[in-house]
Amino acid sequence: MNIREEVRRMKQDAPFAASSKEEVRNRALLLAVASLTEHAEEIFAANHEDLAAAKENQISEAIIKRLKFDEGKLADVVRGIEQLTSLPDPIHRVTLRRELDEGLLLQRETCPIGVIGVIFEARPDALVQISSLSIKSGNCAVLKGGKETVNTNRVLFRLIRDSVIEAGLPEHMLLQAEQHNEIDELLECDDCVDLLIPRGSNAFVRYIMDHTKIPVMGHADGICHIYVDKDADFAKAIPIIVDAKIQYTAACNAVETLLVHRDIAAEFLPALARALRESGVTIRGTAEVTDLIGGETVEETEFREYLDLIVSVKLVGGVQEAIAHINRFGSHHTDSIITENSGTAEEFMNMVDSAGVYQNCSTRFADGFRYGFGAEVGISTGKIHARGPVGLDGLVTYKYKLYGHGQIVGDYASGKSSFHFKDL
Amino acid sequence: MNIREEVRRMKQDAPFAASSKEEVRNRALLLAVASLTEHAEEIFAANHEDLAAAKENQISEAIIKRLKFDEGKLADVVRGIEQLTSLPDPIHRVTLRRELDEGLLLQRETCPIGVIGVIFEARPDALVQISSLSIKSGNCAVLKGGKETVNTNRVLFRLIRDSVIEAGLPEHMLLQAEQHNEIDELLECDDCVDLLIPRGSNAFVRYIMDHTKIPVMGHADGICHIYVDKDADFAKAIPIIVDAKIQYTAACNAVETLLVHRDIAAEFLPALARALRESGVTIRGTAEVTDLIGGETVEETEFREYLDLIVSVKLVGGVQEAIAHINRFGSHHTDSIITENSGTAEEFMNMVDSAGVYQNCSTRFADGFRYGFGAEVGISTGKIHARGPVGLDGLVTYKYKLYGHGQIVGDYASGKSSFHFKDL
Repeated sequence: MNIREEVRRMKQDAPFAASSKEEVRNRALLLAVASLTEHAEEIFAANHEDLAAAKENQISEAIIKRLKFDEGKLADVVRGIEQLTSLPDPIHRVTLRRELDEGLLLQRETCPIGVIGVIFEARPDALVQISSLSIKSGNCAVLKGGKETVNTNRVLFRLIRDSVIEAGLPEHMLLQAEQHNEIDELLECDDCVDLLIPRGSNAFVRYIMDHTKIPVMGHADGICHIYVDKDADFAKAIPIIVDAKIQYTAACNAVETLLVHRDIAAEFLPALARALRESGVTIRGTAEVTDLIGGETVEETEFREYLDLIVSVKLVGGVQEAIAHINRFGSHHTDSIITENSGTAEEFMNMVDSAGVYQNCSTRFADGFRYGFGAEVGISTGKIHARGPVGLDGLVTYKYKLYGHGQIVGDYASGKSSFHFKDL
Repeated sequence: MNIREEVRRMKQDAPFAASSKEEVRNRALLLAVASLTEHAEEIFAANHEDLAAAKENQISEAIIKRLKFDEGKLADVVRGIEQLTSLPDPIHRVTLRRELDEGLLLQRETCPIGVIGVIFEARPDALVQISSLSIKSGNCAVLKGGKETVNTNRVLFRLIRDSVIEAGLPEHMLLQAEQHNEIDELLECDDCVDLLIPRGSNAFVRYIMDHTKIPVMGHADGICHIYVDKDADFAKAIPIIVDAKIQYTAACNAVETLLVHRDIAAEFLPALARALRESGVTIRGTAEVTDLIGGETVEETEFREYLDLIVSVKLVGGVQEAIAHINRFGSHHTDSIITENSGTAEEFMNMVDSAGVYQNCSTRFADGFRYGFGAEVGISTGKIHARGPVGLDGLVTYKYKLYGHGQIVGDYASGKSSFHFKDL
């Protein structure tokens, strides 16, 4: 397959996808639901091939669990798509409507980004989620999933793409890439691709960012912090920290660094250490911390993203020191404060420069489903447009429409006409 | 001056600017108004030095006009700042408020982008506009203006920065760069600078884009189109085209290419050619066009951004061909259709992939002031965040705030708790 040629066709189809009616996009989604349900056995058979190959290649049980696509997963993705069809149309939504002058109407309307490329891990449900978000938002999409689910993905993609065409959406709206070298080809299509969303390891995301002129949405690191304030309720703090560390250690929103107010350290740290160690978590900390509760002594500059049952701990003198540490060493992803003091919480939440700033809850809530977005294409730490879990809104930009009756700028420059700026 | 060191201090001050109260930012703006008015003579004296140097360097009259900062310009910028103070606060604005579960409240709030660098042409009013937009939006800003107004800029900057500090905003909120080599230093500060906004020539903007990892907002080319449909009202079309071409030829939103429906060419083109030539405009066109009205015959691939009294003309078979031409050869800036047919207009406006899509008016309306934004920092053709004239909204991003009472993800994963997603 020649990616450049395919993407060029996709770019030509993009304006048709962008101007498609909501009914047509919802019809495509409902046809996909019917088709996925009807072809369940074919999907499961393809998935069995992938699972057999994974076992042969001695892939770990944890990963095999993610490759699996069974009745339960099918029911989940079907429910997800049905939820999407019931959401309001994210495009053609008027976000500003202003009369500039008699008969000169300015309207800002949401519209799709255009052509997006999503490179994601080996998880068949991700393929369904990403393609259905693209359909709903009128975007054309190139999808490249992990090679370990190539058979499952191929069947899922065929069924969804057929539904798109049957509903009357453009033929080149969706494209599946299967070869790893096609990613490099895609990175060079900066004249046709409007946005790339890479998901995966830190190194992989950085590689994408460093090798393309196409805007990239996503995040490389996920060094999330929890700051336990002097006014913290320990009964909340400990379960939150344990959850944020162990509920899914490999996730980007798992906590990696704990900052604890010095005033409560002697009382809080031993209880925390006990709870963490009972959950199998290894503690690394500055000398002040390890003096109190043991563990490996390290400098704060050695704190890292572990994605494992390890956590860094440091003491701070107050919320300002916590904020400064997080803004300097964090990755602007998600950071939480544990405090009963709402003034301190506001200070933290206004001054920490991250996509998610939480009070008294687990960093693991940073997720499109948990935010009620239905699904997510990724999590963004960029500030230019989407931040945090990216659902439909993040797949949409806007354009200004201006409706006139022959108005020219010269008349406004000369003072013959003047604006009256009336928001409608 | 060591830019890296100064920008690092600015980054540390950014959270304080971000959490500053609206009153404090408005007070800084009003203090600036008072100070600029009070020091008018000092500003004008500095401007006379710049003008004298410009004359000595034989700079053209057209440019000297832009360097000038007199009573009229001062009155304009003062009015602009006063307008800004009366606008609602663009930050700390809640754009989503959703109860995820009992006692678990998600809020999406606008916040400043952080540290922005703006590199702009020699126009003293631009310095005032950009710094006042930054103050209002709680952003820290590095300002680098054109060297031809260095004396005027120095006085204006000092007065505004003093007002910022007097109002109680952070000391390092604003920084002026004066040396051209400081731009290259700034491009390397990707750990501290969140956004760059370069204004100026095509080549300059491309240089910035190609030499930094910092996100860049703006546009290089401005190849704007006007499509004259078969259902056009000629009495509107001709004054609109003349205005869009000659009202300010050096502007990025001046029209460069005209597309005319073949069915009306024989009748429309001679009248158009007469009006354009009377205004001193040279016509270049495809053979079909020059056969009818003369002028230099060129291929459509030779159409360019002229920023001069020159225009390209081509015939098309209908709105779809016009859309395809614009999406392929345009620069996604601003494109207008002249038609009385609202169906054709909607088709054009939905399918042309540009930041501004107009019906029956001049492309020259693409401007922050004319959109009622008060002022603009630039015009963006990017789709990832701001598009079109960038006013306060474009200087603002958002963060998600989540308020809990000890909630952990494990309880939702296990089914012990479940979300109820209630928009408030």
